[in-house]
Amino acid sequence: MGESKSIEIQRWNGDTLNPAETDTVATEEPLEIRVRGRSIAITMRTPGHDEDLAAGFLVTENIIQNRRDISEIAHCREGEAAQLRNTMNVFLTPDVEVDFGQLTRHFFASSSCGLCGKASIDSVHQHFPPVVNQSEVNAKMLAALPDKLRVAQPTFDQTGGLHAAGLFSMEGFLTVSREDVGRHNAVDKVIGNAFLDRVDLSQSILLVSGRASFEIMQKSLAARIPIVAAVSAPSSLAVEFAQDSGQTLAGFVRGKTMNVYAGAQRVQ
Amino acid sequence: MGESKSIEIQRWNGDTLNPAETDTVATEEPLEIRVRGRSIAITMRTPGHDEDLAAGFLVTENIIQNRRDISEIAHCREGEAAQLRNTMNVFLTPDVEVDFGQLTRHFFASSSCGLCGKASIDSVHQHFPPVVNQSEVNAKMLAALPDKLRVAQPTFDQTGGLHAAGLFSMEGFLTVSREDVGRHNAVDKVIGNAFLDRVDLSQSILLVSGRASFEIMQKSLAARIPIVAAVSAPSSLAVEFAQDSGQTLAGFVRGKTMNVYAGAQRVQ
Repeated sequence: MGESKSIEIQRWNGDTLNPAETDTVATEEPLEIRVRGRSIAITMRTPGHDEDLAAGFLVTENIIQNRRDISEIAHCREGEAAQLRNTMNVFLTPDVEVDFGQLTRHFFASSSCGLCGKASIDSVHQHFPPVVNQSEVNAKMLAALPDKLRVAQPTFDQTGGLHAAGLFSMEGFLTVSREDVGRHNAVDKVIGNAFLDRVDLSQSILLVSGRASFEIMQKSLAARIPIVAAVSAPSSLAVEFAQDSGQTLAGFVRGKTMNVYAGAQRVQ
Repeated sequence: MGESKSIEIQRWNGDTLNPAETDTVATEEPLEIRVRGRSIAITMRTPGHDEDLAAGFLVTENIIQNRRDISEIAHCREGEAAQLRNTMNVFLTPDVEVDFGQLTRHFFASSSCGLCGKASIDSVHQHFPPVVNQSEVNAKMLAALPDKLRVAQPTFDQTGGLHAAGLFSMEGFLTVSREDVGRHNAVDKVIGNAFLDRVDLSQSILLVSGRASFEIMQKSLAARIPIVAAVSAPSSLAVEFAQDSGQTLAGFVRGKTMNVYAGAQRVQ
């Protein structure tokens, strides 16, 4: 099971529907993440680096905070082939307390309409503290990061169908990149990879190949990343979130030009 | 609260970080959907057509099947301004039975690791019956649909930051289009709009501005849509789903050319 699959397609060239030929598409399969044997999430993802994805998901959803909390992450060892590769078991050290309840925050907030006063945004907002790192980065370097990420996206070139995320040092060196059909998954994978390797991200830049949404910003803040760059547009809430969290947010980062939406003091 | 917001940005032109100027970004805010006073989902969406979104979500998640099941959909009428515009109450007719339990299918599937044999995909697969409609469509017309959708995307032109979805007749006439920061939301909005207006979609084409994933295909099947076209790439599971469900799936639909991944017999 790789990151892409061969399939049969028929091309329409403007005139004729050609006979079937072989092409490649990005693989999408469900991954079930289990913590202490309990299923906590199913995400549609591109197989590969599933340990990174599981770890990153737990960190960015604020379920675990310390590397030592995880004793092992492993694929399921019982069942059929599809289950073996699509189930990740996360084993935690015995003294870690997990608030499983907060995982259901999107569901069944047992409130009737009389409680509409509860702010919806509060139930998705994790309230991580703002970033404090004020290191400056070179604007030319920041604008040029997508070219470096692109080189590291082999499956995108084959299929045109994957999101990518990359972590860079403040000097613009790529430290890790991951691809996925889900953009949140690509971010979870790079953050999880750094987390498992005990890499401090408070001096790092996150680059995403698509847009910057609220969730991308919140995931980056969970990992203490001070600078987020996106090849496409940010949403209104991403901009507001970056302002509140003290993060730098750059959008439409396109090689030679970009827009800075928040934290411009870091961009020199 | 519109579909876009004005903000201050600083542009990097390759040489200088310009002084602050005004720009526009797509609005992203959480929408809480309540059924019979119970919170069932929070989705990050672009405000506007919230009734369509709530109805479409309930249909494509297989919570309701008939238009007559819904007696009213309305924004919350109590609370602060943000809650009024970000909470939708769906009122159902008294005899409708809702399986709230299936909404938690992504969470807390109360299984220990000994049960890894349960197929993960089963828990996300709704198993709608295949489509039966075998109407044929003109290939040239299908390939040209993105141009028609683009004309109907006002906010994208302003912000570059929105996904779009459109429903077309088999002859290529656009019947409804919607934009959203979330691509699933754009699909839910057009399907919900048709559902509320009692429009039968078994003779319709769905076009999405981005990629085609498993979830896009499942939502379209829930609405009985036989043909799905995407401007970008499909995933492996989207292709397999279309083959199993008898749907036609076209990808990289780019004006004059496209690839047909499934159901080519409908494309003439």
